Amino acid sequence: MKRVYLDNAACTPLDNRVFEAMRPFFVEEFGNPATIHSYGSVPREALDKARAQVGALINSKPEYIFFTANGSEANNMAVKGICLANQARGKHVICSEIEHFSVLQAIKSMEKLGFTSTQLKVDKNGIIQTGELEELIKDETVLVSVMLANHEVGTIEPVAGVAALIKKINAERATRKLQPVYLHADAIAAAGVIPVDVEALGVDLLSLASSSFYGPKGAAALYIRKGVRINPLIDGGIQEGGRRAGLENVPAIVGMGKAAELARSEMAERDKKMEPLRDLLIELILKNIPQVRLNGDAKKRLPNNVNVAVEYIEGESMLMWLDDAGIAASSGSACTSKALKASHVLLAIGVPQEVCHGSMLFSLNKDTTKEEIEYTATELAKTVKKLREMSPLYKKP
Amino acid sequence: MKRVYLDNAACTPLDNRVFEAMRPFFVEEFGNPATIHSYGSVPREALDKARAQVGALINSKPEYIFFTANGSEANNMAVKGICLANQARGKHVICSEIEHFSVLQAIKSMEKLGFTSTQLKVDKNGIIQTGELEELIKDETVLVSVMLANHEVGTIEPVAGVAALIKKINAERATRKLQPVYLHADAIAAAGVIPVDVEALGVDLLSLASSSFYGPKGAAALYIRKGVRINPLIDGGIQEGGRRAGLENVPAIVGMGKAAELARSEMAERDKKMEPLRDLLIELILKNIPQVRLNGDAKKRLPNNVNVAVEYIEGESMLMWLDDAGIAASSGSACTSKALKASHVLLAIGVPQEVCHGSMLFSLNKDTTKEEIEYTATELAKTVKKLREMSPLYKKP
Repeated sequence: MKRVYLDNAACTPLDNRVFEAMRPFFVEEFGNPATIHSYGSVPREALDKARAQVGALINSKPEYIFFTANGSEANNMAVKGICLANQARGKHVICSEIEHFSVLQAIKSMEKLGFTSTQLKVDKNGIIQTGELEELIKDETVLVSVMLANHEVGTIEPVAGVAALIKKINAERATRKLQPVYLHADAIAAAGVIPVDVEALGVDLLSLASSSFYGPKGAAALYIRKGVRINPLIDGGIQEGGRRAGLENVPAIVGMGKAAELARSEMAERDKKMEPLRDLLIELILKNIPQVRLNGDAKKRLPNNVNVAVEYIEGESMLMWLDDAGIAASSGSACTSKALKASHVLLAIGVPQEVCHGSMLFSLNKDTTKEEIEYTATELAKTVKKLREMSPLYKKP
Repeated sequence: MKRVYLDNAACTPLDNRVFEAMRPFFVEEFGNPATIHSYGSVPREALDKARAQVGALINSKPEYIFFTANGSEANNMAVKGICLANQARGKHVICSEIEHFSVLQAIKSMEKLGFTSTQLKVDKNGIIQTGELEELIKDETVLVSVMLANHEVGTIEPVAGVAALIKKINAERATRKLQPVYLHADAIAAAGVIPVDVEALGVDLLSLASSSFYGPKGAAALYIRKGVRINPLIDGGIQEGGRRAGLENVPAIVGMGKAAELARSEMAERDKKMEPLRDLLIELILKNIPQVRLNGDAKKRLPNNVNVAVEYIEGESMLMWLDDAGIAASSGSACTSKALKASHVLLAIGVPQEVCHGSMLFSLNKDTTKEEIEYTATELAKTVKKLREMSPLYKKP
């Protein structure tokens, strides 16, 4: 059977070249990088190399890169680490209403410790309303967390604009001897897919994950600009400069480094290939299926993201039928798809509750072909037709 | 050059059979286990299998096993998760004075949130003084954390006795409608090396790590008994029953499962082989080198642990000379060996500060040979002689 994998937002396939780079670090070079004897030296040098490779991907110095086990850990480390290190100076946090659960729930956990939070609204395309931010920032605000690209609808957010605004606010605060507001960007869906430059963005912290760019599971990172006051999430030993304790997952980190290097050199070419295929899939879906809309911004959009709302149908049913046709897609975030709740992202951009349940996310990768896209569009149209015929709720336009 | 690896406390070599079990989950079965299409099903079943394998190793039901990225994360999850979930009921924690840094520092971080802590003393062999515990437990105590075996001196602790005492105290507390005190055991140095049975021990939480028993880096676990109130360390999605968010490191978890299965079936044989070699190394060192003492308990000791204090010498110098002879050992915990501080474990058992710096940890593995042990003893004796001749501080006995 033909198999088409269009759930790269859940995780990308591991690049064979990345696996080959990882391979010596399982059995042969198994040493603990913290050890000072010769078994530790090759793994230690490999960590240094990976740190430089990941840094280069986002224009960061290697020493500002701190490895974690996954993107959720990086987001938790950013939110909780900033809150707990700076709580004496203020207990208020702001994030966009379409953040990933690992940001939203981390903030919720801080609320149990006396923090308050405010959510920044997005427009109907999922673009955050930077203008409103100025009013939301209070003297007690310690952190603003906005994502660089949304993991469900693919919207690319104006993070540099947010940073510029915060810079202005921080300059004014400095005159009153107030600590700066820190800016964290969750770039997990963006880094390795589109150009990300921490200097150009002007962020203090930025999360990225290996599994978004053909790297292995088990490796992600948090960029922390020099001088940022932050507590560890995992306390203990002196690994990662004392900011993240525990034995480093050397093979996974090596793989993330290699994947970052490949992403950096091949990104332009990959995106040039994916973007027209993304647009073709959107075009075919909108043309061939009635009562369908595109979720998210048509232009400010990740080159691999197609998210559509199909009226009168359950996304889970479409997923099953497509799976039978060999096509893997998603009805939303992989972290929550089992929960069968309407996506908070879709609700935030104004998709009616019942239509949220009919939303489908097709996320492409660097090896997706035109044939796969055409096959998917055809199968989706067939599936929708079949399911609508079966549905007592369906009303023809 | 001959190479002898006796730093298995820092991490064990990866078993080739474990790597073979992991291998399909890199490139072929790369799917995200949270996805409901067919790419998710093999990884998901693999997680289930690994959970059962790890559970079986410690006599736990699979559903009480929660995977983490390393032992430090498991310890942090236990300490912080219990503290934060139960803080309304009390803000006091007890641990032994020889716990791993990931327990001690996690408790320190809770002190910044208003918790207080008390340390339980150990005797000169490193055995915790259970009798004193009864007085230390206050109404506000929410957690007692004691390790099952010490990572540096190898002492095996009377955790079952602690559990029995706490059970008695909890019965009395129940009559006053006070919540139970929870018992966490850090079994990272013990699990997979000696028999560990959560039911026989009577613990509420127990940490274990794959890298202690020939499994991969990037996988560890926290056993959480049913009904224990605990918060996640990493908030977000619904992975691990909502207790640990983030994309699971499928290959590493699969490897941990396989390593647990092998440990369970081969443990008796491995220990029968390691124990006499451990005793031989201790015997040869004590016989051939003057002014040397064994750290830790001679009997209640991990079968793979040899920790000796060599007077008038720096452990770091010995490490370097041994490394030149192809022997990898440690001067203490891998997490802190770079810090060149005297080990808190050795200080706690009464080793004088200057002698702590001359302590050496040789940790064996299942494949250690008699020849390697004899070679190591000979090289160590030579090294000590040489270094003492160079030392202006050395006084002959």
